[in-house]
Amino acid sequence: MSTTDTLRRRLDGPYPDTRERVRWWLSQPGNEPVDELSTEEHRERVLAWARELASEGDTGMGYPKEYGGKGSPGRSVTSFETLAMGDLSLLVKCGVQFGLFGGAILHLGTERHHEKYLQDVAQLDLPGCFAMTETGHGSNVQALETTATYENGEFVINTPSDDARKDYIGNAARDGRMAVVFAQLIAGGEQRGVHAILVPIRDEDGETLPGVRIEDCGAKLGLNGVDNGRLWFDHVRVPRENLLDRYAQVHEDGTYFSPIENPTRRFFTMIGTLIQGRISVSGASISATKVALTIAIRRALERRQFGVPGEQEALLMDYRTHQRRLLPPLAKTYALSFAQLRLVDDLHTAFTSVHENERERRELETLAAGVKAISTWHATETIQSCREACGGAGYLRSSRFASLKADTDVFTTFEGDNTVLLQLAAKNLLTDYKDSFGELDPLGMAQFVAGQALGVLTERTALRKLADSLVPGRDDDANLLARKTQLSLFRWRYEHLLAGAARRLKGGIDAGRDPFSVLVDSQDHVVEAARAWVDLVVLESFAEAVGDDEILDRLCSLYALHMIEAQRGYYQEHGRLTGARSKAVIKAVNTLCAELRPHARELIDAFAVPENCLGDARVVAEAEEQVPA
Amino acid sequence: MSTTDTLRRRLDGPYPDTRERVRWWLSQPGNEPVDELSTEEHRERVLAWARELASEGDTGMGYPKEYGGKGSPGRSVTSFETLAMGDLSLLVKCGVQFGLFGGAILHLGTERHHEKYLQDVAQLDLPGCFAMTETGHGSNVQALETTATYENGEFVINTPSDDARKDYIGNAARDGRMAVVFAQLIAGGEQRGVHAILVPIRDEDGETLPGVRIEDCGAKLGLNGVDNGRLWFDHVRVPRENLLDRYAQVHEDGTYFSPIENPTRRFFTMIGTLIQGRISVSGASISATKVALTIAIRRALERRQFGVPGEQEALLMDYRTHQRRLLPPLAKTYALSFAQLRLVDDLHTAFTSVHENERERRELETLAAGVKAISTWHATETIQSCREACGGAGYLRSSRFASLKADTDVFTTFEGDNTVLLQLAAKNLLTDYKDSFGELDPLGMAQFVAGQALGVLTERTALRKLADSLVPGRDDDANLLARKTQLSLFRWRYEHLLAGAARRLKGGIDAGRDPFSVLVDSQDHVVEAARAWVDLVVLESFAEAVGDDEILDRLCSLYALHMIEAQRGYYQEHGRLTGARSKAVIKAVNTLCAELRPHARELIDAFAVPENCLGDARVVAEAEEQVPA
Repeated sequence: MSTTDTLRRRLDGPYPDTRERVRWWLSQPGNEPVDELSTEEHRERVLAWARELASEGDTGMGYPKEYGGKGSPGRSVTSFETLAMGDLSLLVKCGVQFGLFGGAILHLGTERHHEKYLQDVAQLDLPGCFAMTETGHGSNVQALETTATYENGEFVINTPSDDARKDYIGNAARDGRMAVVFAQLIAGGEQRGVHAILVPIRDEDGETLPGVRIEDCGAKLGLNGVDNGRLWFDHVRVPRENLLDRYAQVHEDGTYFSPIENPTRRFFTMIGTLIQGRISVSGASISATKVALTIAIRRALERRQFGVPGEQEALLMDYRTHQRRLLPPLAKTYALSFAQLRLVDDLHTAFTSVHENERERRELETLAAGVKAISTWHATETIQSCREACGGAGYLRSSRFASLKADTDVFTTFEGDNTVLLQLAAKNLLTDYKDSFGELDPLGMAQFVAGQALGVLTERTALRKLADSLVPGRDDDANLLARKTQLSLFRWRYEHLLAGAARRLKGGIDAGRDPFSVLVDSQDHVVEAARAWVDLVVLESFAEAVGDDEILDRLCSLYALHMIEAQRGYYQEHGRLTGARSKAVIKAVNTLCAELRPHARELIDAFAVPENCLGDARVVAEAEEQVPA
Repeated sequence: MSTTDTLRRRLDGPYPDTRERVRWWLSQPGNEPVDELSTEEHRERVLAWARELASEGDTGMGYPKEYGGKGSPGRSVTSFETLAMGDLSLLVKCGVQFGLFGGAILHLGTERHHEKYLQDVAQLDLPGCFAMTETGHGSNVQALETTATYENGEFVINTPSDDARKDYIGNAARDGRMAVVFAQLIAGGEQRGVHAILVPIRDEDGETLPGVRIEDCGAKLGLNGVDNGRLWFDHVRVPRENLLDRYAQVHEDGTYFSPIENPTRRFFTMIGTLIQGRISVSGASISATKVALTIAIRRALERRQFGVPGEQEALLMDYRTHQRRLLPPLAKTYALSFAQLRLVDDLHTAFTSVHENERERRELETLAAGVKAISTWHATETIQSCREACGGAGYLRSSRFASLKADTDVFTTFEGDNTVLLQLAAKNLLTDYKDSFGELDPLGMAQFVAGQALGVLTERTALRKLADSLVPGRDDDANLLARKTQLSLFRWRYEHLLAGAARRLKGGIDAGRDPFSVLVDSQDHVVEAARAWVDLVVLESFAEAVGDDEILDRLCSLYALHMIEAQRGYYQEHGRLTGARSKAVIKAVNTLCAELRPHARELIDAFAVPENCLGDARVVAEAEEQVPA
């Protein structure tokens, strides 16, 4: 098997046939990404594509078999993330319809809802919306203001103010017939917290229903093939059965019942089931990054500029500045791909197990939040570097960078703002996955950490190890290229940051300081701890995937050492790297770039991006000549 | 005078009336940036705007008074950079027409050309192109392939291959009538290097002239109001007088004469006169960054999310993560503004002095190259952070981030790829502004540095100082907030990096190693030295501007310490910061952010961005309520 094939097999993971199927579909003429259609034409095209995928059974793989699905969340995410090599409006349209709207019905609804809706959702006969975000509240979902009041056998859905309108809602402006509306449920005269309710918004003919107001969000920075809109509800009445009632029911007489008594815990249990969205966005970011790297590296293997006078000019790829620009991001893209495989595997296990393991579920949530943040930022940065590496040619729309940049830009925001997600991850790490406070409430975390949980945690993991790891330069002789050395540096950084964050939070609260200012003072520290943890998990995933592959081994070292290089200020501050050792890290990164340079083409070919997703012939076609025979 | 007014006055610099005039023009209804026109409509609008500015005398300020100008390069750049707060297609259209096309005629032509063309250029009666870049050569301009062969009193302009077509040329696809074509001049049977020649490309009716082929570049990532195109010449004949002959003449009999004998030096003298373009792009980047920061900070002063339960939610601006995201870039934007003022002042002096000082001219080129690279990268990064800081609202086109991101994206590439420009700057620094090798030829640098010049340089500046500055922690007691401490850390870093780069280049060449691999091996070091030098000059400029203003003093410290924080790995490696000291830098950055937080609104108001350039009411209008009375 060729190097490329070996690498591809590893990247493809457990569902190679699913990936191959999506790549085949994308490579068909007419399925390549579009970039110059009008908004209306683009929306039309995207809907037609989605219908085609639906009719071929590609869109309901995560649904139970009895409703036409494959009962495989793993396949579902795999298919979705591969689709991200093509038109990203199609991706997001599918994400909204089959992932968010369908996912809410699947996970928050009960058999009655599945029976009634899932097949229609999977076949796109019932286009729907996931109406969670409001203009006034995106991150702080618990504070949503839309209300759903139970009255005489019906729920009355109402938008109390313009700040409470549902905003940025995909499928709302044009195609959606129904919406899963997240609203404060009021039943038995009491507010019961945020619940999800099915609300029809348009009739069969596409006419907006009475009491519903819909507005188009208008042109966006990207993803203009998706019809995002705003929704207002003016005392819209829906039957009692429309409450997605897996975690809470309202009886006919208005009695409210939930098996989860604590309202906050109930809220996060519900929200937690929607985790597939974050994992999907993470995977999609990684795929888009692969497209950008493929374009830029192929160009760098073709484009010549400057060099030895009298000789042919040198290839861009042979300049260190260019290697530094493209190869460490390539290594990180591999690293994130392997972390993503783990994430999808964990998701699949969690959602197909007979018994729910709450701790595992929380761990999965934490990993999904963290990896989503890191993958999406990585996409934004890397796509930008790739654009710049292609110079003026990369600025033409035909190069694909315009849409890659614009369409992925919002990934850092949707399915959770990255900074907020890292705080969520940190909270779970700091509190050992205890759920006695709000998921996204940073202040609650500060107060909770100050409680007794800290003692248990710190003793168990981090602080205990500090004493023996603070000796300066203690591993100056360890081989930087040894995985063990790399892992131990990553792990030490995470544990030390986490313990430090816990101490700062606890110290501030114990000293009686204003909790909000304690939180603000340690916020950067907290976020950094989460980031360090994600970095560690990503390295562990890569390390596991290396096996005896020499190229992957080097690539893994490039990822690890480039991250250590970026954090060498921290490692020196804490005596974990001496100055000389820190310089050796920089040198090792340079050497690894040079060693991997001859494999650059194989490494991107293993991404298997369909040719028609690589944009303009000018940037790509000539590179063909460089393909080794 | 209010704090805002004081700050604005400092930022406005020596031509406040020019800035005020442009801000007034931008604020007029109908002059706000447009974002949803078709390409054709956008191009039409941009042309109409440019004509309006031209008719009002705003576009020829840099031209001599006898041709309707003001003879003021300083005013010209100031006007241009202020215009960058509005529609950036208009900016670039003006840059192409009045800056590049007109600038080439002004600086490379002689009185005959000025007399014949300048007034028409300034009034946009003669729309023109600057046809330098070819598909095959963007950075390595000396290797352009278009030819201009002198035959029987005429020059024959020819495009020998598709790689030699002129590419990405503004004004070419639609409006241009004439082009300044950069071509290899062949006269008297010999190749004379790259020269600039005026070549008509369309007639009065806009019809393409015989022998000329024009193609539209098509949709771009941004700047779609500018008509970029490609040009091919098939043995097009133009009169001898069309050679822009300030630095070289061809007599009627084909004899070639230039006062500058060395062809490389001649080339760089010619190219050097076009420096205004780089300085203008730098200024424009800074203005666009100000727009983004104004939008994001105003939003952060209005938007609330999470906070103390039972109380009003907290403002985004009160979270440290948000302060960290926005305030250091704000400080750097101030820093770059002051560096830009210095650059414009130096440009004005250089171009209005009776006597040319070659060394000063080279220093100006170096500074322009370096500041352009840093300003444009800063714009790309900061606009991205600001978009993310505005969440979903920032993803709507109406927020202005779509166009700000897309339109400024190419700034890192045009007027010189940033990485190439930093190498150019490094070369000048390493060789003490000697010009005996190619401006953009990295290999020449390696070989030259290995020559005797190195000894002179290193003895004079850097190496001499190394001995006494390598004592670890020697200034651990110095006050981090003292400008002297900050400047000395910046200066030390620059000098140490420069000396190190010189040693590596010299060592490699002296050891007889292949010059190309010596270059590649030290390329990252060389680029870093240039970057450190720009950082130093920027800090010096800021430090000078601070005076006794307390807010500016803190802001300057925030800039300085945030840069030191980013480089704390380096400082520790070289014993310039101890670990404890390095941690103190991080803490100081946090403290400065908190101290400047109450002044955030004044600091952005001083940018004086016209309200109608701030996009969507949703993001901006509500922030009005936060304006202190």
